[in-house]
Amino acid sequence: MNKIEHHPDTSRLAAFSDGVIAILITVMVFELKFSNDLKWLDTEAWLALLPKFVSYTLSFLMLGVLWVNHHQLLHQIRHSKPGLLWTNLHLLFWMSLVPLATHLVGSYPNHAYSGTVYGLVFFSCAGSFTRLRLYALRHQLLHEHSSVSQQHRVKRKNRLAMALYLLGAAISMYAVYPAFVLYLLVPALYVSPDKP
Amino acid sequence: MNKIEHHPDTSRLAAFSDGVIAILITVMVFELKFSNDLKWLDTEAWLALLPKFVSYTLSFLMLGVLWVNHHQLLHQIRHSKPGLLWTNLHLLFWMSLVPLATHLVGSYPNHAYSGTVYGLVFFSCAGSFTRLRLYALRHQLLHEHSSVSQQHRVKRKNRLAMALYLLGAAISMYAVYPAFVLYLLVPALYVSPDKP
Amino acid sequence: MNKIEHHPDTSRLAAFSDGVIAILITVMVFELKFSNDLKWLDTEAWLALLPKFVSYTLSFLMLGVLWVNHHQLLHQIRHSKPGLLWTNLHLLFWMSLVPLATHLVGSYPNHAYSGTVYGLVFFSCAGSFTRLRLYALRHQLLHEHSSVSQQHRVKRKNRLAMALYLLGAAISMYAVYPAFVLYLLVPALYVSPDKP
Amino acid sequence: MNKIEHHPDTSRLAAFSDGVIAILITVMVFELKFSNDLKWLDTEAWLALLPKFVSYTLSFLMLGVLWVNHHQLLHQIRHSKPGLLWTNLHLLFWMSLVPLATHLVGSYPNHAYSGTVYGLVFFSCAGSFTRLRLYALRHQLLHEHSSVSQQHRVKRKNRLAMALYLLGAAISMYAVYPAFVLYLLVPALYVSPDKP
Repeated sequence: MNKIEHHPDTSRLAAFSDGVIAILITVMVFELKFSNDLKWLDTEAWLALLPKFVSYTLSFLMLGVLWVNHHQLLHQIRHSKPGLLWTNLHLLFWMSLVPLATHLVGSYPNHAYSGTVYGLVFFSCAGSFTRLRLYALRHQLLHEHSSVSQQHRVKRKNRLAMALYLLGAAISMYAVYPAFVLYLLVPALYVSPDKP
Repeated sequence: MNKIEHHPDTSRLAAFSDGVIAILITVMVFELKFSNDLKWLDTEAWLALLPKFVSYTLSFLMLGVLWVNHHQLLHQIRHSKPGLLWTNLHLLFWMSLVPLATHLVGSYPNHAYSGTVYGLVFFSCAGSFTRLRLYALRHQLLHEHSSVSQQHRVKRKNRLAMALYLLGAAISMYAVYPAFVLYLLVPALYVSPDKP
Repeated sequence: MNKIEHHPDTSRLAAFSDGVIAILITVMVFELKFSNDLKWLDTEAWLALLPKFVSYTLSFLMLGVLWVNHHQLLHQIRHSKPGLLWTNLHLLFWMSLVPLATHLVGSYPNHAYSGTVYGLVFFSCAGSFTRLRLYALRHQLLHEHSSVSQQHRVKRKNRLAMALYLLGAAISMYAVYPAFVLYLLVPALYVSPDKP
Repeated sequence: MNKIEHHPDTSRLAAFSDGVIAILITVMVFELKFSNDLKWLDTEAWLALLPKFVSYTLSFLMLGVLWVNHHQLLHQIRHSKPGLLWTNLHLLFWMSLVPLATHLVGSYPNHAYSGTVYGLVFFSCAGSFTRLRLYALRHQLLHEHSSVSQQHRVKRKNRLAMALYLLGAAISMYAVYPAFVLYLLVPALYVSPDKP
């Protein structure tokens, strides 16, 4: 702690990102509310909450995927650089638009562009995450231990996720539900256990 | 900090969970507001705030219990794994529904299902906390020092809490107040000091 | 990091408290909004914002005092205990009521009890902070280096702050402004530099 | 961890500031909402969102600049002092007004004083950041390694940013758009890579 390092480690970068992601993932839940006077067994009000609840759950899952990936990427990075901070802020900016996309899908599930905005926001998240990973690779900030095969697996998954988001955004113009099936494939892709 | 460990420690997992729990426990307080124009000595408005205040206090207490337990569990875990991250996100998801349950109980204290939803959300929290503990046990992530007798005591308490929540959720269908007496037993169970 | 300590250090306790205090101190600012359609040079709307702004600034200052004291107390504590976690949660609970008191004072500055509630909430904060300090003292969690004279100075300041809050809460029943002059003395008391 | 240092390091100061900045940068996004019932292809509602979106993006960028600078300043500071905590709280106070300024610009983009308030808030942020830097310099809290030439470059940039904010605040009285071009120059100034 008392020695200077010319390059700080990534602990504060991680802490700040954790704070932002924790807020995004949590404050969305405060959308889940009964705005009007709820009546006893008011099935309509509960049904109106349903799309909000589903979109919240999906966004929680997808932000969770991004957090886990971010956690694993930063664990491999030896030290920070100003450029890394900026590339990370770029990722956080796109992630910060997730509540807006979730609000659109939850409140206007039948508007075609809701699903399109949703897909495009997550496409941008995945894209800027890839940019962050490439930045670390190009500036040789990774530990030597990080296996090349693991890097390739992550790269393939990342590309697949981006393709799924883009495809979903396009499909959503015509049919919302198939788009969300595509979006759901992304967390499924990541939650499945990895060989170490 | 400069050496790679194949398995990261749990510090970032703890920081992220702390962030999420801190937000959940805090932002609920912003429900405590006088929505309409408050008149001088407006007893009605203050009485309307009362159930919101009580449900906030109770949720603060129960999220506090979960945080203390989470703190103690993570302290015993040597290192993290992707699966642990996901099991922890699963717990955080159920915890993130606490504000919704608190809102229901605070705004609609006379609706029987308010208390039922409240009990079921905390039942799911306790259940997913147990799942997190079992994950750590099964994957041998715990320090060897963690005493077996302590593990058993935690297990017994956990099961009792889950039973109380489920019982309360069922009773709340018929009578709200006895259900909340049962819910209150859980923090009482945990706040009482443990032999070290 | 890889060795077990029977008593965890206070880093996670500090991180969680930081999260809660950061949220409380920040989210209050989102009260500062023009609710109705603001007209060009709408002096009335700006004047209506004034008490909200003043109460926000005061609460920021007083939560700042509590955070600085909390920071300095935790720095002196060697390790954590379950009882310390609970005593700290007790403090955080009272602090979490600050936004409610700030909302009352900001929206209803002419209601006598606004100032009283404000004073009582901060009285409870100061009281539970004292309790936290005493807990650490009694359970011998402090570093031996902590000077006795510093402990005494902190104790005196703490008592004075509690007296000022209680006096202000009583006076506020009859006159709001003198009460807030008393409240303002507390940050003044703490911001003045300490001899090391 | 187990040894006492008379002066704590800046890790908790950094963590608290990170929390506050993360909340400020994130919660602003929850302003981006469709308040009224959105109709299918409701171009008007989307156009009304545009100034909010632009002001959000700009504020995200400028808070990002402040965070990166804060990160780099704290990395150079060896240990903390009570006075440093207060000077940092002073900075955080001005930063906490950013959401209010963003709300003004986003909701009332045609009101001249919106842009003025915006410029003055960021002028105060830059000013109190300079004060924090000077405090660290004067109390010799910086590592010896921090190069003098780097200090000078930071100083020049800081002054330029403050001048741009003040100029923008004045110009905004007469023309809003040129003011925002000036504001945009600040992040451009900082994002451009530094020679190490």
